[in-house]
Amino acid sequence: MRPVHVAAAQLGPIQKAEPREAVVARMLALLDAAADKGCDLVVYPELALTTFFPRWYMEDQAEVDTWFEAEMPNAATQPLFDAAKAKGVAISFGYAELTPDGHHFNTSILTDKTGTIIGKYRKVHLPGHDEFDPERAFQHLEKRYFEPGDLGFPVWQTLGGVFGMCICNDRRWPETYRVMGLQGVEMVLLGYNTPSVNSQKSAEGPEDRLFHHRLVLQSGAYQNATFVVAVAKAGVEDGHPLIGGSVIVDPNGKIVAESLTEDDELVTAVCDLDETVFGKETIFDFARHRRIEHYGRITSQTGVEVAS
Amino acid sequence: MRPVHVAAAQLGPIQKAEPREAVVARMLALLDAAADKGCDLVVYPELALTTFFPRWYMEDQAEVDTWFEAEMPNAATQPLFDAAKAKGVAISFGYAELTPDGHHFNTSILTDKTGTIIGKYRKVHLPGHDEFDPERAFQHLEKRYFEPGDLGFPVWQTLGGVFGMCICNDRRWPETYRVMGLQGVEMVLLGYNTPSVNSQKSAEGPEDRLFHHRLVLQSGAYQNATFVVAVAKAGVEDGHPLIGGSVIVDPNGKIVAESLTEDDELVTAVCDLDETVFGKETIFDFARHRRIEHYGRITSQTGVEVAS
Repeated sequence: MRPVHVAAAQLGPIQKAEPREAVVARMLALLDAAADKGCDLVVYPELALTTFFPRWYMEDQAEVDTWFEAEMPNAATQPLFDAAKAKGVAISFGYAELTPDGHHFNTSILTDKTGTIIGKYRKVHLPGHDEFDPERAFQHLEKRYFEPGDLGFPVWQTLGGVFGMCICNDRRWPETYRVMGLQGVEMVLLGYNTPSVNSQKSAEGPEDRLFHHRLVLQSGAYQNATFVVAVAKAGVEDGHPLIGGSVIVDPNGKIVAESLTEDDELVTAVCDLDETVFGKETIFDFARHRRIEHYGRITSQTGVEVAS
Repeated sequence: MRPVHVAAAQLGPIQKAEPREAVVARMLALLDAAADKGCDLVVYPELALTTFFPRWYMEDQAEVDTWFEAEMPNAATQPLFDAAKAKGVAISFGYAELTPDGHHFNTSILTDKTGTIIGKYRKVHLPGHDEFDPERAFQHLEKRYFEPGDLGFPVWQTLGGVFGMCICNDRRWPETYRVMGLQGVEMVLLGYNTPSVNSQKSAEGPEDRLFHHRLVLQSGAYQNATFVVAVAKAGVEDGHPLIGGSVIVDPNGKIVAESLTEDDELVTAVCDLDETVFGKETIFDFARHRRIEHYGRITSQTGVEVAS
């Protein structure tokens, strides 16, 4: 038994006008509740500190930068790190990162139980577009405000196991899980802000969006014999609805816990990392079964190449 | 509209003593029924001509070779090709292939509507083991009787679209779909023989097996915006149960048709290949979104490498 008691700390909506300090207060309340339940690890959503600002078109870079964090921890988030240390709980959350040399990333971090950052991930698969798109029902400007992550998909040994991170749209790409799976990942942590309607296809509403969301998490977990903890920012932000559906998925691809609301909500499970062993040693024993000589296109070509 | 009317021609069990001619007669009956419905393409299971012989441990290679086909078409299967031509229906089915130079593959072929073979695929991901395993509830000796396929995952332009094939366990590997997706595949055809119970974990029964089966098909379809047609050999062969669950999955990952029995059964759907376009041009526009610089491990390492 290698139990990790994990909490998916779903956040309800954050309005554009809501300051970071108010959000951190909500995150602290969830952290307290998780600590009271005996959790080892609390996972918050992508861009947890603010509204999902990539829905807003901005031309002034100074305005854009107000949504970013130039340091982590900083004044607004220091209480989170202090509480993690005081409670002896590891945390993970996402934020918009502005580096000292002016780069912009959609980032998440992982701490140990002393509130020390031990891992950083920068979102690789940025969805959306980079210019104002009048054809869309609403904007999704991640490709405008962020650069693609430059750290790959590392994993970290902590809490008795092997942990990885990804963010939102990364979860739709099997490469995400596989690169971590090839490093023996046992629990993948991810946050997301997923609009309830496809901005380019209004018929694709929350039911379909939740279906796809669960489908990719469950298959990624099963195909790599890993737990996956997926945490929503949910509910209606300034008129824009986001799906909930925070889930903890086991290495069989089964959902073991799921949120019931679109508000601040704690979803918890005790995950025995030894449950990853059977899959990794049998049907997904990569060393015995993978045939990399036939996978070349996956890394040699980016887009589709149709034979003539 | 680029409609392809496809039939998943599920086969019920084939007992060890049942000759190929009797199986082909059943396949012809399904072909006739599909032609009567106006189908363009009929897809049969993996190793469609015989029982799933890799469950039987054999040491005599001459005995092993009795389960293989040295030519295709051959005397037993010529009626299938003749009927395909006469009815103007393309077909795909799996068989054990013995090449003129003595290689053994788990193979499937695709014909056009004149009964001419236009595509051949050899199973890449062989499950199971190569020596008798007394720990298992039953044997699964694919690694003993077959070599891994040597043709990769090609696709073929036919019936107005781009078609690919894979076989059984290939469907659990996201690399399978992705290599075809990178060639613009619009419909993946696959047959399978999947035991209803995990030979190494008796608690994993038909419900779990069907769950994993659907999960990997649906995610593979969604993540590559392709139809997937998956066809079972089902039912109890000489006391060994195989799952049914033949399905046609659309490019949204939704099941549009599914078998109801574990017997010979036709599952049909009209699939508009233009339904693949939206996914390929938006969320899964590979050229815009994939980041191959971070996928290196997928092709550079076969097994897990845990950082020290």
